[in-house]
Amino acid sequence: MKDVVGFIGLGNMGLPMAGRLIDAGYSLRVYNRTAAKAEALRARGATVVSRPADVAEPGAMVVSMLADDAAVERVVSGDDGVLQRLGAGGIHLSMSTIAPATAGRLAEQHHRTGAVYLAAPVFGRPEAAEAGKLWIILAGPAAAKNRVQEVLAVLGQGNFDFGENPERANVVKLAGNFMIASAMEAMAEAFTLAEKHGVGREEVAQMFGQTLFPCPVYQNYGKAIAEYRHQPAGFKMSLGLKDLDLVLATAAAGTVPMPLASLLYNRFMTGVAKQRGDIDWSGIALSVSEDAGMA
Amino acid sequence: MKDVVGFIGLGNMGLPMAGRLIDAGYSLRVYNRTAAKAEALRARGATVVSRPADVAEPGAMVVSMLADDAAVERVVSGDDGVLQRLGAGGIHLSMSTIAPATAGRLAEQHHRTGAVYLAAPVFGRPEAAEAGKLWIILAGPAAAKNRVQEVLAVLGQGNFDFGENPERANVVKLAGNFMIASAMEAMAEAFTLAEKHGVGREEVAQMFGQTLFPCPVYQNYGKAIAEYRHQPAGFKMSLGLKDLDLVLATAAAGTVPMPLASLLYNRFMTGVAKQRGDIDWSGIALSVSEDAGMA
Amino acid sequence: MKDVVGFIGLGNMGLPMAGRLIDAGYSLRVYNRTAAKAEALRARGATVVSRPADVAEPGAMVVSMLADDAAVERVVSGDDGVLQRLGAGGIHLSMSTIAPATAGRLAEQHHRTGAVYLAAPVFGRPEAAEAGKLWIILAGPAAAKNRVQEVLAVLGQGNFDFGENPERANVVKLAGNFMIASAMEAMAEAFTLAEKHGVGREEVAQMFGQTLFPCPVYQNYGKAIAEYRHQPAGFKMSLGLKDLDLVLATAAAGTVPMPLASLLYNRFMTGVAKQRGDIDWSGIALSVSEDAGMA
Amino acid sequence: MKDVVGFIGLGNMGLPMAGRLIDAGYSLRVYNRTAAKAEALRARGATVVSRPADVAEPGAMVVSMLADDAAVERVVSGDDGVLQRLGAGGIHLSMSTIAPATAGRLAEQHHRTGAVYLAAPVFGRPEAAEAGKLWIILAGPAAAKNRVQEVLAVLGQGNFDFGENPERANVVKLAGNFMIASAMEAMAEAFTLAEKHGVGREEVAQMFGQTLFPCPVYQNYGKAIAEYRHQPAGFKMSLGLKDLDLVLATAAAGTVPMPLASLLYNRFMTGVAKQRGDIDWSGIALSVSEDAGMA
Repeated sequence: MKDVVGFIGLGNMGLPMAGRLIDAGYSLRVYNRTAAKAEALRARGATVVSRPADVAEPGAMVVSMLADDAAVERVVSGDDGVLQRLGAGGIHLSMSTIAPATAGRLAEQHHRTGAVYLAAPVFGRPEAAEAGKLWIILAGPAAAKNRVQEVLAVLGQGNFDFGENPERANVVKLAGNFMIASAMEAMAEAFTLAEKHGVGREEVAQMFGQTLFPCPVYQNYGKAIAEYRHQPAGFKMSLGLKDLDLVLATAAAGTVPMPLASLLYNRFMTGVAKQRGDIDWSGIALSVSEDAGMA
Repeated sequence: MKDVVGFIGLGNMGLPMAGRLIDAGYSLRVYNRTAAKAEALRARGATVVSRPADVAEPGAMVVSMLADDAAVERVVSGDDGVLQRLGAGGIHLSMSTIAPATAGRLAEQHHRTGAVYLAAPVFGRPEAAEAGKLWIILAGPAAAKNRVQEVLAVLGQGNFDFGENPERANVVKLAGNFMIASAMEAMAEAFTLAEKHGVGREEVAQMFGQTLFPCPVYQNYGKAIAEYRHQPAGFKMSLGLKDLDLVLATAAAGTVPMPLASLLYNRFMTGVAKQRGDIDWSGIALSVSEDAGMA
Repeated sequence: MKDVVGFIGLGNMGLPMAGRLIDAGYSLRVYNRTAAKAEALRARGATVVSRPADVAEPGAMVVSMLADDAAVERVVSGDDGVLQRLGAGGIHLSMSTIAPATAGRLAEQHHRTGAVYLAAPVFGRPEAAEAGKLWIILAGPAAAKNRVQEVLAVLGQGNFDFGENPERANVVKLAGNFMIASAMEAMAEAFTLAEKHGVGREEVAQMFGQTLFPCPVYQNYGKAIAEYRHQPAGFKMSLGLKDLDLVLATAAAGTVPMPLASLLYNRFMTGVAKQRGDIDWSGIALSVSEDAGMA
Repeated sequence: MKDVVGFIGLGNMGLPMAGRLIDAGYSLRVYNRTAAKAEALRARGATVVSRPADVAEPGAMVVSMLADDAAVERVVSGDDGVLQRLGAGGIHLSMSTIAPATAGRLAEQHHRTGAVYLAAPVFGRPEAAEAGKLWIILAGPAAAKNRVQEVLAVLGQGNFDFGENPERANVVKLAGNFMIASAMEAMAEAFTLAEKHGVGREEVAQMFGQTLFPCPVYQNYGKAIAEYRHQPAGFKMSLGLKDLDLVLATAAAGTVPMPLASLLYNRFMTGVAKQRGDIDWSGIALSVSEDAGMA
């Protein structure tokens, strides 16, 4: 019989991740702000609780997968927060995409209670979460990292250890989202150039996905950008803006000028200003085409 | 016994390509401006000639692989040019990276003499040329494209047909170079962000090459950028500037604003201004780091 | 005999402003964090106090001129803050350059104590403060604006009323600093273009200052940029970075993409990264020249 | 009685300039491609001719004011061109805005015939031409510059001598147009920032025109941009694109990265792509507002 694991956050990513842990034999205590989403897991044997603190047991492990910095801080602190119960020897495996500075602050708070904060943001869409094919970026104290290996093996296809400082995992995660967005902008401009010269967008997307860029980011976003298919949103434009804002804030903290990140930031801002905050972030391609007179 | 094929341009790319054709059984007549480079091929059975026109036979095929627009125009036109002899039924398979507008003009000139101009720029570095693993972007009249398939099969691992208009192959080629340069800028900014926050550049490059971007462009340039290893130059910074200049000129012809291309253009310009025109074009990463105070 | 006025902040701007008020017949109570700076004013009749709260009298007026948001918040709130004493009918004429959002929050705090917060940021360098030639951007409740006219007449050559909402004065002030920085970038690029083509920077700066742009921003910064004379700093590079950061944050709050502001932000970031945070913000011209290979 | 002067180009600028020369007592021979425009001048005593060459007399002076490089080259060269007649001692005062490289080439051609090419591009709109208030940027051989002073005094309020090399006058002229466009972009972004925060565009334009930027470029374009009044065009968007293209080409010749010029180039390109090539170039403000969601 495996350990009891607490799990917080049952959104598009968290729900399939929690499901995999149940299938792998873990006893799960789950919490979600919108309680209804937990019912499917109750049917599969999870214990559903009504306060974040109640997923924790002294010295045990809690996994969280939430939308943003504020959500993570909410479930950690306060009278209902997991830090009320986690205590010495407890581990919080924090898998959300948040600011490095927030991760640093949270690690400090955990440390004061004897618990350990592990930063473990992931790359992968909901399908990858479902299949246990996430890539996991890990940082925090070594002993705790050893203790979570089994859980990570259930959730991901590999994890990368970036040392003891949890902020670093979040820096790397933001760097990755920035690189994906850069690839989207490059494709949008390249395909528009091609189209204006009589070459079909889809034809060129397909060719590059087989030749220079045979990797899912180019293949999948390339197809979406070629077809202007930005709904339903896998990852919203408004979240793209939030992430680029985090990238620039992190860059500022390190005094790093990132002109390409600034360009992308303005693209996402334009998308949100044009009422496209809820479509997929690949929708920045629409502005590229509009600026070329293709309304 | 296979056909006689003319071959012009024995640089880093052309030399291994010509070698493959000899190995495949073609009788080659070769021309190179610097004659010495042709000697190795003479030893392998090629006929070495001293004027571009002499590689051509009426109605036969000529392949060219040259550095820039001017070089291609030089071997085509004039008293010594291949158009003096190629004539009706002749095919010029033009594999250099040149401006679409130049390709259009050349196609016109060939047409007036009864010959056919096929645009067939390639993706791939000298190693890929050696191994016959180029990706070939093809455009021109259908009958001619059929006639060159056997030759293309010797040189590349696949070819992509972009229709009858030769300009389009060059548009696609330029779009590809732009996308590669975009990936380099994204990596340079991302790695610098990571480094300033204590994450090793090589570590992050390696991780992305295995996860989000498992494709050679990211793996190879990622390693070079992580290590600031920009010599020897596979493709010179000054040629990167030339290509981005062609991208922007082609964009202007189609009225396409390409802000990311403009950003890259200025990066290459800065590199050339800083006396780095002869290092590899991935050397734009040096400016990214310098702007972040890492001299 | 004129009113008693409280004055907080005796830096490069505040000191000459307080001096003018004394000369105009006001009784000043002054506070400065570094007490020594107040001595010159004590000799001219000012009462020097040791806590911000002590410059205030119930229902009277307090003027503040400080370096940043944090400094203003510090003198306002807390046990020693002016809001402890200012009370109903009191006016805080806040002349610092701060974020509109901070101004909004401060106005709210004042309102809860019955006092009025007037935003009154200024354009002008220390010489203009000395000469009473500041331009004052004013926003807040109408009655309070009427009560401060006499004081404003001592400090400035004109004031512009932007309505009841104090945030707006700070938006306008930030917009102005952004426009000044834009003019500096334009001049730096233009002069470098000229220089590389054999035209003297100073010659071209002087010509534009007499013809197209006969206004002090172009004349004074133009001369500094032409001569690469960025010390002593009238306004530090690091403050330029801070202001552009505020511009972009304010733009984000209004969902306004500002690509030129992003460009300037990266310029100032580069300057700070290159250890130039303490030279004048016109020093961004150094990076423009360096990027053109003029070390 | 004053000299006979040849005059070519009777557009918005040329017509009032020619008129002033007549009023000042010069005998004018005029040529315009569209002959009808010359009739008003015939009525005032000018001799109207039907070929460019016919405005010239051996050793005399010809003034030209034309739309672009091609137009200037057309009236100079060929069987009908002024160089057929101008000859030794003749002066061509060329006042159009053209590429420095074109000016260099033209100077060479003139030199071969014994004539002198003086570059004398101007700043000023048609009203300034009417009033003799142009600013004239002058470069070329000293003796010729002396001979044209009297004519320049009729046309402008001042001229600036940039030495012997005619290319330099055109570099300076392009630098000026770039600086004007930069000011327009800065205003468009600043006013949009203000508007989104509840501050009226016109109010803020007026304030800046009286305080920080009391010069016509800011006052006039500021008013137009505040009011979105871009018709009729004083200077067309498509000409703005052409000029920024010349700026970037000139920058490339000197290896000068100009990121702000690139930003403006893309703005004008976007304007032309959106079918706004014929409105005033200040119309780039429309894209700034559209990107902020203000359709």
